[in-house]
Amino acid sequence: MSSIAHELAKKQKEISVSEFFEKNKQILGFDSLTRALITSVKEAVDNSLDACEDAGILPDLMVKVEKIENNEYRVTVEDNGPGIVKKQVPNVFARLLYGSRFHTRSQRRGQQGIGVSAVVMYGQLTTGKAAKVKSKISDEDVAYECELILDTKKNRPDIISEDFVIWDRQHGTSFQINVKGKYIGGKQSIFEYLKGVAIVNPHAKITFVPPEGNTVVFERASEQVPPPTKEIQPHPEGVELGELLSMAKYTESLKMTSFLNTEFSRISYRVARDICEIAGVPPDQKPQNLALEQAGAILEAIKKVKIMAPETDCLSPIGETLIRKGLKNVLGSVKAEFYAPPVTREAKVFAGNPFLVEVGIVYGGQLNREESVQILRFANRVPLMYQQGACAITQAIEAVDWRRYGLEQRGGSGIPFGPAIILVHVASTKIPFTSESKEAVANIPEIREEIELALKACARRLKTHLNKAAKRSKAKVKFEIVQDIIPMIAEKSAKIVGKPVPKLAGTITKIMNVVWVDDEVKPDKNKHHVSVKIFNYTPKSQSLHLHMLVPYDKIDQKTLKEKPMEVRDGNKLTWEIKRLSSTEIFELTFDLHGLSQEQYDENEVYVSGIDAASVIGVEVLPGDWDLEHLKITEEGAPEEGEEGEEGEVDYDDGAEAIKDEE
Amino acid sequence: MSSIAHELAKKQKEISVSEFFEKNKQILGFDSLTRALITSVKEAVDNSLDACEDAGILPDLMVKVEKIENNEYRVTVEDNGPGIVKKQVPNVFARLLYGSRFHTRSQRRGQQGIGVSAVVMYGQLTTGKAAKVKSKISDEDVAYECELILDTKKNRPDIISEDFVIWDRQHGTSFQINVKGKYIGGKQSIFEYLKGVAIVNPHAKITFVPPEGNTVVFERASEQVPPPTKEIQPHPEGVELGELLSMAKYTESLKMTSFLNTEFSRISYRVARDICEIAGVPPDQKPQNLALEQAGAILEAIKKVKIMAPETDCLSPIGETLIRKGLKNVLGSVKAEFYAPPVTREAKVFAGNPFLVEVGIVYGGQLNREESVQILRFANRVPLMYQQGACAITQAIEAVDWRRYGLEQRGGSGIPFGPAIILVHVASTKIPFTSESKEAVANIPEIREEIELALKACARRLKTHLNKAAKRSKAKVKFEIVQDIIPMIAEKSAKIVGKPVPKLAGTITKIMNVVWVDDEVKPDKNKHHVSVKIFNYTPKSQSLHLHMLVPYDKIDQKTLKEKPMEVRDGNKLTWEIKRLSSTEIFELTFDLHGLSQEQYDENEVYVSGIDAASVIGVEVLPGDWDLEHLKITEEGAPEEGEEGEEGEVDYDDGAEAIKDEE
Repeated sequence: MSSIAHELAKKQKEISVSEFFEKNKQILGFDSLTRALITSVKEAVDNSLDACEDAGILPDLMVKVEKIENNEYRVTVEDNGPGIVKKQVPNVFARLLYGSRFHTRSQRRGQQGIGVSAVVMYGQLTTGKAAKVKSKISDEDVAYECELILDTKKNRPDIISEDFVIWDRQHGTSFQINVKGKYIGGKQSIFEYLKGVAIVNPHAKITFVPPEGNTVVFERASEQVPPPTKEIQPHPEGVELGELLSMAKYTESLKMTSFLNTEFSRISYRVARDICEIAGVPPDQKPQNLALEQAGAILEAIKKVKIMAPETDCLSPIGETLIRKGLKNVLGSVKAEFYAPPVTREAKVFAGNPFLVEVGIVYGGQLNREESVQILRFANRVPLMYQQGACAITQAIEAVDWRRYGLEQRGGSGIPFGPAIILVHVASTKIPFTSESKEAVANIPEIREEIELALKACARRLKTHLNKAAKRSKAKVKFEIVQDIIPMIAEKSAKIVGKPVPKLAGTITKIMNVVWVDDEVKPDKNKHHVSVKIFNYTPKSQSLHLHMLVPYDKIDQKTLKEKPMEVRDGNKLTWEIKRLSSTEIFELTFDLHGLSQEQYDENEVYVSGIDAASVIGVEVLPGDWDLEHLKITEEGAPEEGEEGEEGEVDYDDGAEAIKDEE
Repeated sequence: MSSIAHELAKKQKEISVSEFFEKNKQILGFDSLTRALITSVKEAVDNSLDACEDAGILPDLMVKVEKIENNEYRVTVEDNGPGIVKKQVPNVFARLLYGSRFHTRSQRRGQQGIGVSAVVMYGQLTTGKAAKVKSKISDEDVAYECELILDTKKNRPDIISEDFVIWDRQHGTSFQINVKGKYIGGKQSIFEYLKGVAIVNPHAKITFVPPEGNTVVFERASEQVPPPTKEIQPHPEGVELGELLSMAKYTESLKMTSFLNTEFSRISYRVARDICEIAGVPPDQKPQNLALEQAGAILEAIKKVKIMAPETDCLSPIGETLIRKGLKNVLGSVKAEFYAPPVTREAKVFAGNPFLVEVGIVYGGQLNREESVQILRFANRVPLMYQQGACAITQAIEAVDWRRYGLEQRGGSGIPFGPAIILVHVASTKIPFTSESKEAVANIPEIREEIELALKACARRLKTHLNKAAKRSKAKVKFEIVQDIIPMIAEKSAKIVGKPVPKLAGTITKIMNVVWVDDEVKPDKNKHHVSVKIFNYTPKSQSLHLHMLVPYDKIDQKTLKEKPMEVRDGNKLTWEIKRLSSTEIFELTFDLHGLSQEQYDENEVYVSGIDAASVIGVEVLPGDWDLEHLKITEEGAPEEGEEGEEGEVDYDDGAEAIKDEE
């Protein structure tokens, strides 16, 4: 028997990281030929965009895909970034687990130090050919060019040839590789990927030269490089015990207080002292002497003291405008009914990393009612194309009961059906991907919870719209019936009793007994015609305030007859209607200029100073324009209070467990 | 500008593989606390089972989970394996990418050299505590015991303490670790995982000591260690160009022919010569001199010559009996209607690795009709608990149009609804997982295709059953109507015309004009009562052969009055019915012994020697008992020929693309 143990021992050996990934290339995103080609483009583009932004340069990228033969393609990605110094080129492009962004906390596309070197490895594995890199930094006259392969036994670059060449660019990098792949069109294509990149990175110009057909240029839509995201220290929330011990061991600080203050964000000296006191650890103890029990006590104390939420200048959200634009772009010529105002949640923390979640939903119109909703996933401004089922974004969508918000969903879980597109963006100083292929966000409880809350918040806005539409159409039906039937009854009765037909306005107002508000937006080229009508179908005179959310500076003042009595924050408008006699109609109309359809597709109208029960067609304005907390009470759509804003998500068991509970 | 390039260059540095995974522990399966605890158990159990099987030992495992405090648990896994020699213990348990199975091609649970060391790293990261390992090989008197941590900066083991201790085991290994986790019950629990392991590894005894409640013992159900799976050379199919070049560079062979013959499986000298000839490469060329173009030509030539399918003794399928047993176990006390006979596909190859796919489906009865079907996934006899959405198994299930096979599925894609459980096992010398957490099989086209074909083959068997049931119930209704109504009409008519009621048997046979076969199985303790009745409802005498698929040695001969005229292969039975007069009934009954309910829940009955159109209740036996190719022609269930057995699956674009086509 012991001979077996010795026999087995002989087989034990080290595996180089590149051998590991060479044999497990599917982990890196090279599982099928179409995906392999997209992954090759993606890794190079991520690197180029990161490099340009690191240097504060407006990116100008050229992506070229050429067909060489059968399943062999040549991919070239060229950028106007700062270039890479000669010495680093081989390591950056032909060595796994080597990079500049792994040890920092800041929002970047690349973080693992694997991506583009994996492409080089895949290229040489499948075509036997080396990668070609050219790079120029601005104070040199010439560019450095080399051919590289990755020695997978050692995980080190092998330079096949190198030279200095003239390059008419001032600075930048060009990367070229032959890979086995398959070029396709459709939803999971390089074109769609680059379009997605262009939408959420409007400061980048991207030129795409496909293997066949015409060159496509995604023009720059903004001349501003996004403000550089700051590198930060870990936030104390979610730091693991072992990590704390290791940080304490290697710190240069001499006292616990200065250690906590300098190595973590959001811990002031005062807070550091509080933490030490609660934990029973002397504030001037040497961090290197921190015992296991003390470290545990420090972590417990961190939970007890009040620590500020993380800085948000380390994060770069997509923002409301670009989310709407992204959704519109996906729609193409398809017309939707309603863009739910996008939701951006406050930054939260997982394992010391700040992150935030954004959600946008577009609904109805010509979107297909018979299909599952379409899901658009983004992480740090990169579109995620594969591994949808593995992603916490998808799992969160599956876990929400969309029946509450007006979509179909069998059993209240799973991907809902209906005419909708749901866009979710997760931004973080560290995206926890499920694998090195960076296509799916892992099911980290803190992130999963935030995605669900953001989805529900945006879904409530959708539901408000659907409720309003349903209410209005119901009231309209009642109103039409009353207006049609009462005169007929009156006429018939008058005939029978042989008397003249009575005046009916009074009767109708008695039956209806409501103030009826009807509003409309008509988009027309560069304009929106807006009208709001208030019908007093009560037997007495009414007075009320009318409120609208409209960007005041976009109103064509010539068209605005009724001036508002108040304009707050540039967009909260109030009109005073002092007296509206029974059966009288108040009418407000104006034109809006310079807004796109998806920027203004629905009026937000409220009233106040009148009994809520007697108004139909609008909600009563909540105190101090607190529109976010407008409650929905119809048809089971949840109130904020009911659902609990935080902490109610049952995320821990993964999507499968949630499905199992159906 | 150049200063930026130099600035960025300074930040470039190497990332140790353990640092990488410490910061990306979600990739290793430590994304939530519940999953982290299961992953810790799983990695240790995988290792123990592999070690026992390597040594040909019947595994006897003890798994203990103790609650230490709050979210801290202690996991202990002890086995009776061959033990690990002292020198290797630290590397095996506290060094990533180190192992014995990465460089071999044979079916094993562990292949990456990451698993259990990742658990050690996770444990020290979250609790600050070291792992404790004890191991004894049989020719020593004492066991070696040590406390280990993984130095993540260097990816090397750090021995905290070591000693020799007395251990009453003859040989074996014990692994103990404290981890942050959460212990839960339900579908994604340690108990369910171990149950799954026990079912598909009936030769293992597993004792589970949970943190609360009673110890559970999964007893050994088989005394046979599965035959050791052979290590093999790569099969030439799917070998990449770069891989071929690299193999040629490092081979010890002196000629191309001997290189091809010795380094690949299924290439004889003759085939090697054919390949060289087609490729235009001299057979005695030195492999080390193989040029890129020549390598390409060799790969093309490999596609053209006939190469045998891979050996299958390197693979260890679960097999029909254990699949049925696995399904039954999941059902518990729930009674199903029908176990579709499991399908085991022939071995195929991806990237040089043989693999095979098995599928079983259980349907109906008390299974819930309103839920999605339940999916059970296995890879190399390991139950997969997480990442269901990421798995090629799930994506293949979603891509099949289950409406053709009797399940509900909106739009013909997505996870179907209905009373069914689908079990899929993928066995391979190398499972291509989507990440190092080994919970989902990657969407490799060759594997995806085989899973779909296996699913469809098993689904056809389900459909045959459903068709038969539907046909029978339809015929029964007709028959009952005829039997009820004809006598009433006759009586009424007789009364009206004042004549005696006529004899009706002849009339009924004329109206029915069928031979009606009705069969039944009644399970009863250890027995099954089987009966087959043949009613001749035609106006003339009939002769025919009756065929059944029954294990002949399980028939209680005392109960078998009518002896078959032929028994082939021990289970293909034929009776000859020489003459069955009009309105006569033939009845065959017998008891079966020693079969479980799920092993025999439906008779397979066929007839021959009679016009197919005049028989109801059974199919006509296809030529030479070729039951596999029995065609289904009703309601759009596909015929083999129609669908094409091979190559028709549109797998390349991933599940998302397939979904998009809805």
